Amino acid sequence: MSNPAIVALGGGHGLSATLSALRLMSDRLTAVVTVADDGGSSGRLRDELDVLPPGDLRMALAALCDDSEWGRTWRDVLQHRFSSAGDLDNHAVGNLLIVALWELLDDPVAGLDWVGRLLNARGRVLPMAAVPLRIEADVRTSAGVDLVVGQSQVALTTGRIEQLRLVPHDPPACPEVVEAIHAADWVVLGPGSWFSSVLPHLLVPQVHEALHTTAARRCVTLNLSSDGGETYGLGAVDHLDVLRRHAPDLQIDAVVADPSAVEDIAALVDSTRELGARLLLRQVSRGDGTARHDPLRLAAAYRDVFDGVVGDVTPGG
Amino acid sequence: MSNPAIVALGGGHGLSATLSALRLMSDRLTAVVTVADDGGSSGRLRDELDVLPPGDLRMALAALCDDSEWGRTWRDVLQHRFSSAGDLDNHAVGNLLIVALWELLDDPVAGLDWVGRLLNARGRVLPMAAVPLRIEADVRTSAGVDLVVGQSQVALTTGRIEQLRLVPHDPPACPEVVEAIHAADWVVLGPGSWFSSVLPHLLVPQVHEALHTTAARRCVTLNLSSDGGETYGLGAVDHLDVLRRHAPDLQIDAVVADPSAVEDIAALVDSTRELGARLLLRQVSRGDGTARHDPLRLAAAYRDVFDGVVGDVTPGG
Repeated sequence: MSNPAIVALGGGHGLSATLSALRLMSDRLTAVVTVADDGGSSGRLRDELDVLPPGDLRMALAALCDDSEWGRTWRDVLQHRFSSAGDLDNHAVGNLLIVALWELLDDPVAGLDWVGRLLNARGRVLPMAAVPLRIEADVRTSAGVDLVVGQSQVALTTGRIEQLRLVPHDPPACPEVVEAIHAADWVVLGPGSWFSSVLPHLLVPQVHEALHTTAARRCVTLNLSSDGGETYGLGAVDHLDVLRRHAPDLQIDAVVADPSAVEDIAALVDSTRELGARLLLRQVSRGDGTARHDPLRLAAAYRDVFDGVVGDVTPGG
Repeated sequence: MSNPAIVALGGGHGLSATLSALRLMSDRLTAVVTVADDGGSSGRLRDELDVLPPGDLRMALAALCDDSEWGRTWRDVLQHRFSSAGDLDNHAVGNLLIVALWELLDDPVAGLDWVGRLLNARGRVLPMAAVPLRIEADVRTSAGVDLVVGQSQVALTTGRIEQLRLVPHDPPACPEVVEAIHAADWVVLGPGSWFSSVLPHLLVPQVHEALHTTAARRCVTLNLSSDGGETYGLGAVDHLDVLRRHAPDLQIDAVVADPSAVEDIAALVDSTRELGARLLLRQVSRGDGTARHDPLRLAAAYRDVFDGVVGDVTPGG
């Protein structure tokens, strides 16, 4: 498939990795970004100025920047963080720029489009909802079930997350997101912090609905590591199970996993077969011991996904 | 003279007014900006991050922005100020962007050139010195002579300023400034806060030297008001006298003044005749009761200056 229309849903470094790969094969990209961040520079900005948290949106835009001196310079400016003993410490410049555009234009999507134009971005970056969100989770601990509030706290919990909720629970989606999902050839979910960046998309009613009714095919990209925080101890199969629990009727067409990050390949084979999905086992990590994706290897995997290359497990196979 | 090469020296709103006029007749503009500001957003940034104060540089860049949706939008972003009860209150976005470029590129001129490219600016904006400066002044009061330190304090003083100094007293000029002065057809000094924005240029040794040795002609634009602060009670002639005190040998070729802001026209006529300068008396104010320049009227006056139109007083006339 040449230059497919792709919608990638996620947040943070995971989404950034996917976009760095997808940009190599399409300029019809839409990144849909979680807007529940409440930590760091973004958290301070939403508290101080009552705006959407800009950080994950900034990272997605940076990943799509034009590969020219112009694009790279403005990307580096956007990603630059002040470091001081004062008020600006740790603020990312792109966060401040995005918020300024929002205040000036009073339109989150128009503001992001202007940053996209600045970067000559290969595609568009949209917030998953038009209002700032909070994530809360019921977390099973040895002492019972705790309520954990806030994306930054949920991301850190090492208890088992039993239930994830958004506050407000039925936020309005961006209309542009719903349109993009319906117009897509492929929708890509993950990689990324499963509970705090990936699953929240399924909790926005209009996004949930669009993901179920679009004619686009759906790809799930599993993580390279479940060593830390919210998914501590969750394996590849568990990730798919959790996804299914949040969207039991969502048809998955393809699953991309790095075999080195799968503890039980036979179980994953069974699980994807039950889902009716192709499983593509590919090295997509950098192979340097870090849990970071290699953009070229991930791009090659996505090419196989989009081109319909037969997977290691094919539906009904 | 078509598309003359012009260097405009000043700071703050005065320089911004001159640039808004000059941009109408040339795209070979260089704005040279005082870097002694220590108040407001700029003052906080130089304290927190140990950088040149960016505010007057930002205003000069904004005045030169391209007159397109692109140029105007980024100008508005640069000029946007956050308003909050928190850390970012009153910071101008352009100040943050300029400082980020400086930190990233480690080169003040390169950083400003990138903002100029962003705005498609009609010309270049340079800092008058490569290091942040402090202004201090000996001020005559009824009780004697006080030392007043800092541009923001000097600008507010209502005593008579007897001596103005820079700290450090011999800062390195930007080499690009010296080059631009030598390559110019015209150099324009003022309007602007006389002691805190205009005269400091004459106190930078290499700038002082270049202004004296350039083949460019020199125009002084007088202010529309001396109602407040540092020039309280100083008339048009006093402004020229103060200038002459700081640069006794500087040849002035033209003086632009709005007759409504000259309390004693006969005295100004005498003064400019002594200087050997053409005097052009023109309405350059908006005529709305404010002390703000009208860009079109000021442009028309500069056109007459550059075209050699005979003034109301001509040298030796």
